[in-house]
Amino acid sequence: MIKTIKYSKDVDLERELARSQFSYDDVNETVESILKDVKARGDKALIEYTEKFDGVKLENLEVTEEEIQKAFDTIDKDLMEVIQYSHDNIKKFHEKQVRNDFLIRQENGVVLGQVVNPIEKVGLYVPGGTAAYPSTVLMNAVPAKIAGCKEIVMVTPPTKDGTILPSLLVAAKISGVDRIFKVGGAQSIAALSYGTETVPKVYKIGGPGNIYVAMAKKMVYGEVSIDMIAGPSEVLIIADESADSVHTAADLLSQAEHDKLAACILVTTSQKLADEVAMEVEKQLKELPREEIARTSIETQGRIIVVENMDEAVFVSNFVAPEHLELAVDNPFELLPRIKNAGSIFMGHNTPEPLGDYLAGPNHTLPTSGTAKFSSPLSVDDFIKKSSFIYYSKQGLEEVKDKVIKFAENEGLTAHARSVSKRFEK
Amino acid sequence: MIKTIKYSKDVDLERELARSQFSYDDVNETVESILKDVKARGDKALIEYTEKFDGVKLENLEVTEEEIQKAFDTIDKDLMEVIQYSHDNIKKFHEKQVRNDFLIRQENGVVLGQVVNPIEKVGLYVPGGTAAYPSTVLMNAVPAKIAGCKEIVMVTPPTKDGTILPSLLVAAKISGVDRIFKVGGAQSIAALSYGTETVPKVYKIGGPGNIYVAMAKKMVYGEVSIDMIAGPSEVLIIADESADSVHTAADLLSQAEHDKLAACILVTTSQKLADEVAMEVEKQLKELPREEIARTSIETQGRIIVVENMDEAVFVSNFVAPEHLELAVDNPFELLPRIKNAGSIFMGHNTPEPLGDYLAGPNHTLPTSGTAKFSSPLSVDDFIKKSSFIYYSKQGLEEVKDKVIKFAENEGLTAHARSVSKRFEK
Repeated sequence: MIKTIKYSKDVDLERELARSQFSYDDVNETVESILKDVKARGDKALIEYTEKFDGVKLENLEVTEEEIQKAFDTIDKDLMEVIQYSHDNIKKFHEKQVRNDFLIRQENGVVLGQVVNPIEKVGLYVPGGTAAYPSTVLMNAVPAKIAGCKEIVMVTPPTKDGTILPSLLVAAKISGVDRIFKVGGAQSIAALSYGTETVPKVYKIGGPGNIYVAMAKKMVYGEVSIDMIAGPSEVLIIADESADSVHTAADLLSQAEHDKLAACILVTTSQKLADEVAMEVEKQLKELPREEIARTSIETQGRIIVVENMDEAVFVSNFVAPEHLELAVDNPFELLPRIKNAGSIFMGHNTPEPLGDYLAGPNHTLPTSGTAKFSSPLSVDDFIKKSSFIYYSKQGLEEVKDKVIKFAENEGLTAHARSVSKRFEK
Repeated sequence: MIKTIKYSKDVDLERELARSQFSYDDVNETVESILKDVKARGDKALIEYTEKFDGVKLENLEVTEEEIQKAFDTIDKDLMEVIQYSHDNIKKFHEKQVRNDFLIRQENGVVLGQVVNPIEKVGLYVPGGTAAYPSTVLMNAVPAKIAGCKEIVMVTPPTKDGTILPSLLVAAKISGVDRIFKVGGAQSIAALSYGTETVPKVYKIGGPGNIYVAMAKKMVYGEVSIDMIAGPSEVLIIADESADSVHTAADLLSQAEHDKLAACILVTTSQKLADEVAMEVEKQLKELPREEIARTSIETQGRIIVVENMDEAVFVSNFVAPEHLELAVDNPFELLPRIKNAGSIFMGHNTPEPLGDYLAGPNHTLPTSGTAKFSSPLSVDDFIKKSSFIYYSKQGLEEVKDKVIKFAENEGLTAHARSVSKRFEK
């Protein structure tokens, strides 16, 4: 049964809502040795690890044009249509994130500005096996493509017969991925970080993965950039008496089925809804194929918090800073300005969270574990970088030269002052 | 003497231009024990460490309004004017970085969007002693203020008489810093990360510091966010025969005086300029108070690379991805589109790098060690985070329900499908 709490100032939210974290300690040494080995032996190591971990001995690591064509020929046509629809929505949303250069011009000939450039080469990890989701490909590759990255390299572990699921290949092709390699795990992160004979070295690696992949990303960070290390998935639902208990329970469970460590929290002003949802969760749990996972999540991490009013509900939500936030109220736009910390916000009674996982358009790669207090959903911004520039005319420099010299001398940096004063000596 | 290389395809740039890194290993244990101690004992630990490291026993850690007023009364008036001028330029530039929310509306009642919120609480480290620069305060606090951060907390070590330099206090007040605490080193990073009785816990910590501060930032990362860990300073100058050897040498040295590990590189199409600059660097070195630091930098990390043409010069520069890039040519705007990786770009013959350190307007906190390949100057973006939102009408949900169910079932996530289908049962 999901635990229900009556909120008051005395409730220790920090303790009560402490979220689980994945544990990486066990894989530390394994990952380190794989990274070293791939750095030293390149493709040879990749082929050996793929045989060992994925059970297939590959001749060629790179997916060919023929294989991609075959994926288009064999994919379920309905699924392909949904992938295309999702792609188009994701593209439309992320295109709004594109940033422009800007310029500041002064009469004295001074021009300042900021220019935006794509990160030239990026890598994208896509899990295989039961977690092989075409939505992962779309959510990571589309913003990279819109950013203008020159080379988008995808890595994903092959199945035992040496192939990649058609849905992943189709999603990759539609999104504009440039090259795809059949390699997974820590070895693929090593390949993208150091480069091998066939896999190019990239500047940034994104995409979700198991604990080996996450640990490898942590370890190569610095050598390359990474997107984030995601914690267990979370949803927090703010609901008043207008919410439907059946829908609310279903929404909680759609998060709970992800992971035993997933956190599902309902914050409601209605004791009646709280009671009904608790019962309904029990009822719906029994109907789920992934009941065991969902039940563990609900029983350990699940919470229903009953509050007095919307102020308290908003306070709790901003404190939690949830990855997914549902506003199950009649007028969600009225609440929106008060939401300070959340990854993605699902508004009103007709917006269940899975809409965002697949096809509404916003990214499903979101800050977890409270990091929405200081970080953002994956976006085009993650695939660009900015440079500022400064152009001074002779007149412009002359006007400020004494100020620069004053500043530099105050800081005891004589050579700084001289780089200006030398220009006015003769 | 600075080393000169003739560029060719055979030159191993990776090796030839390998940059130094600060070493943190020695301080690992010390920092770890300070962090733990401050977490456990709060203000008491802060006061003890301040006595031990800064040589002053403080009663109150927080700077008072009276102390700030006194700083305004005693500061050198010319310096204050320059600080105000610099502040205004930085504000003007960074205001152009402000991001707006966006909306996407569909006829069927679907509304998508992205909202921007400030990071509520941020911490800013400002070094004391000989590296106490008002420019550090301005460059970090102004973008935070523009972002709309509710609480900007500055920490900086006190001098032996328990005071803070007037220039730092004035810069802080002008920039809109909310609270200032007299505490430095690893202990101040601990205080900002965990909170103490008087120092508030923040969500993100920025600002430069010595190796203790850098190590502490590394260690608390995850608990809070951090800006970056900066490596040694760098400049790369692209120059053709139009460049002046005296100015070029002065510009190289203005970087070299920062740090023995600083990297100063000239890439030029002119053998004549290369020869003259090498001589001029020797001459000017002897005139510098910080000669020893600058000489070590020039002799170990300094390079002049002679190239055949501008294509090669641009290639080398994009490979290095320098923190500071000077384009010492007559038409720098013609080169700008080809510059892919650089922190800040100083264009033309009248834009020495110190302009950017102090007062032109763009930020002086820049990506070092080649990280300009995937990261950006500090900006307003570093003090905000985005949330996406999704609002679906009943009609909108009905139109896509089969697609969501198709996607979810393909991914084996039944509860995801049911969160939609349950809304159409009755």
